[in-house]
Amino acid sequence: MDSVKIFLAEEDMPRHWYNIQADLPEPMPPVIHPGTHEPIGPDDLAPLFPMGLIAQEVSQERYIEIPDEILDIYKIWRPSPLVRARNWEKALGTPAKIYYKWEGVSPAGSHKPNTSIAQAWYNKEEGVQRITTETGAGQWGSALSLACNFFGIECKVYMVRVSFDQKPYRRLMMQSWGATCIPSPSDQTNAGRKILEMDPDTPGSLGIAISEAVEEAAMREDTKYSLGSVLNHVMLHQTIIGLESIMQFEMAGDYPDVVIGCAGGGSNFAGFAFPFVRDMLVDEKKTKVIAVEPKACPTLTRGLYKYDFGDTACTTPLIRMHTLGHDFVPAPLHAGGLRYHGMAPSVSHLYEKGYIGAQAYHQKECFDAALGFARAEGHLVAPETSHAVKAAMDEALACKESGEAKVVAFNASGHGHFDMGAYEKYFAGDLVNYEYPERKIEEALSKLPPLD
Amino acid sequence: MDSVKIFLAEEDMPRHWYNIQADLPEPMPPVIHPGTHEPIGPDDLAPLFPMGLIAQEVSQERYIEIPDEILDIYKIWRPSPLVRARNWEKALGTPAKIYYKWEGVSPAGSHKPNTSIAQAWYNKEEGVQRITTETGAGQWGSALSLACNFFGIECKVYMVRVSFDQKPYRRLMMQSWGATCIPSPSDQTNAGRKILEMDPDTPGSLGIAISEAVEEAAMREDTKYSLGSVLNHVMLHQTIIGLESIMQFEMAGDYPDVVIGCAGGGSNFAGFAFPFVRDMLVDEKKTKVIAVEPKACPTLTRGLYKYDFGDTACTTPLIRMHTLGHDFVPAPLHAGGLRYHGMAPSVSHLYEKGYIGAQAYHQKECFDAALGFARAEGHLVAPETSHAVKAAMDEALACKESGEAKVVAFNASGHGHFDMGAYEKYFAGDLVNYEYPERKIEEALSKLPPLD
Repeated sequence: MDSVKIFLAEEDMPRHWYNIQADLPEPMPPVIHPGTHEPIGPDDLAPLFPMGLIAQEVSQERYIEIPDEILDIYKIWRPSPLVRARNWEKALGTPAKIYYKWEGVSPAGSHKPNTSIAQAWYNKEEGVQRITTETGAGQWGSALSLACNFFGIECKVYMVRVSFDQKPYRRLMMQSWGATCIPSPSDQTNAGRKILEMDPDTPGSLGIAISEAVEEAAMREDTKYSLGSVLNHVMLHQTIIGLESIMQFEMAGDYPDVVIGCAGGGSNFAGFAFPFVRDMLVDEKKTKVIAVEPKACPTLTRGLYKYDFGDTACTTPLIRMHTLGHDFVPAPLHAGGLRYHGMAPSVSHLYEKGYIGAQAYHQKECFDAALGFARAEGHLVAPETSHAVKAAMDEALACKESGEAKVVAFNASGHGHFDMGAYEKYFAGDLVNYEYPERKIEEALSKLPPLD
Repeated sequence: MDSVKIFLAEEDMPRHWYNIQADLPEPMPPVIHPGTHEPIGPDDLAPLFPMGLIAQEVSQERYIEIPDEILDIYKIWRPSPLVRARNWEKALGTPAKIYYKWEGVSPAGSHKPNTSIAQAWYNKEEGVQRITTETGAGQWGSALSLACNFFGIECKVYMVRVSFDQKPYRRLMMQSWGATCIPSPSDQTNAGRKILEMDPDTPGSLGIAISEAVEEAAMREDTKYSLGSVLNHVMLHQTIIGLESIMQFEMAGDYPDVVIGCAGGGSNFAGFAFPFVRDMLVDEKKTKVIAVEPKACPTLTRGLYKYDFGDTACTTPLIRMHTLGHDFVPAPLHAGGLRYHGMAPSVSHLYEKGYIGAQAYHQKECFDAALGFARAEGHLVAPETSHAVKAAMDEALACKESGEAKVVAFNASGHGHFDMGAYEKYFAGDLVNYEYPERKIEEALSKLPPLD
């Protein structure tokens, strides 16, 4: 009988993360201090992050060892299975081989714990007692709650108020792991109070929540801040996904022709794809690598590669990245994790250099694809993940046209158990396809220093 | 580094289910026709079940081959991991080794697909086009929807009305897999219409839902009925859990001293435990085997071992089993899957003969245990599963007292992602411990023929 899952044994799990900075043909542009216009240094980041993570953020080392304590937690669900989607191939009638890496097996239900566990550990090592963060749909907040719980760190999550009200189950998950989750804006920070004063009924936004979490961390000696995407060290921790996958493909005797991940801030895409990009950069493999984003928030396909702030309130350093402008408010997509105005600078850099491609879809066609996948393979994926499913389906259908038996691989970043409300709207025909509002991104950036 | 998960390779997956009837020291009492008082034969069951399953129901064969098509679907998530709960051991400070078999990795989130896939396949083989069933909390309805979808069978689920209203996510899951899920009582059956006439606002019950599903299957030529627990063939299909576990324990170089599963109708308990019971019966292993049930529905610990109906409406054959009386309506526990008045006849038989033990707990202490488990091991388990967690914890704490390093194993039958409302009540302090109402079970049975 044909095998379906490729399981890697625990003892064969990768012991290092892969740092793509070591292999870039050109270094990434520096991160710039908004006041001095000079590249920022470790000291600028020290109030927010432990030195262990700051060191990783700027490291040029190719492989960074994963500490044993982190591996021990990873082993609760890692290595995750690489699954051959045989039933879906049959249903699509494609000669392509489709594989998905199934990250939904983690206790938080997505790839996010790969970095939250690592971040919590490096904080613990430096005696940090509290960590703040923000969360939109709740995936990241749950993952950090889980991680802090393992290492006895207090965790406070500012959750965008509208999600806090609409998704009580995600909040309860964080509470189960001992975290405090409060709706943002709150009266616990200057940023929050200021917004509430102007608009007591505001639904909140990720930008506001970031400002609150950063403010609290900056103000308190015992507290650091944690981010679930965008930054280099986050991409680094996620590469365990792709490193495992490469070993699993070797076991299966295959190698992907197409590598796909959905991209909001870029972390699950980078985590899966970067080890394959390494093979392109170093071993001259010819692989098509696709970042998939929503048409309503088309950061790579429509955004500009410019210096911009990471948050709406303009409190972060300036990062050169693909951006729709820091004041862009994406439409209320169900794929909350893909609603970000920017894109990880490493992903943006590789896109700009032509190593990776991008593809944008509307949410309805993504749900169509996810439903077909669920009926063939069983798993109900998160709305974010449905974007990767759609791109994989299109690649497989193109093979059906051309008769090619390509190997198509995508990262199934998470399950949709907390997103069934989105499926409900889909079934009811109430799902809206949001068009990207044509806008002058330059206007949002006009007050920034002319850095590029 | 110490291993955490014991992964069995797909190619080593068991190819047979284990039928405990072959090894029972005494045969189980026959199932009796309520009209003739004679043991029922295959023909009596033919209107409801395909012959392939009826044959398994009465089979005395020790090992029954698993058809390849079923194995191929199993492989989407099986073999499931056996996990060493190292963090929880540390948190409890116990010298015991705790292992859990993690069935939450299935697409439906529990062990239920082990039998739903098999049942759907045998129905398909005999050309059945439609299957009806009932569901309470929704675990079984989801699992059968998933299974029917794989084999192109129409699936109709009668869901207890109060759950239908309270748990829209479970209903949406069934819809995602193409099933029709309607609230019971409905106006689509005589049984449903009769109840609605008397009480239009009834919340429904599992007993009513069974009557509706059975009625529809009995009335239509193209339709069969499917049950998610209690029957011998259901226990049989679930034994893949225990068979895998035994192989995994061998890989780990351990063997459990204590084997634990929660028990409602008995299927996840039996599936995990029966292969270990085989080792007791055949190889004279000394293992403590515990079925765990709610104090509010203490079928084994307080029920009588009598002939009784399987449903409230007295439409099924008479089964000798532990029962609280077919008219018993359990309190509205969150562990909906453990709210059943009877217990699988095979489990009842083994309990009566002293091969297995039973333990009852209140739901609050089970949630306490589940929370401790979630904080140590990450996974949030279903309220049903929390009963097994509690029993495992008590065994581990007893080892702490005695200093014994026993191997304690339990079946983690499912995740709690669709049960966070129960956790919400737990956190809010709104969870009620329901006492079992002292009752004369004999009165409920007084109209039955004196069969034992």
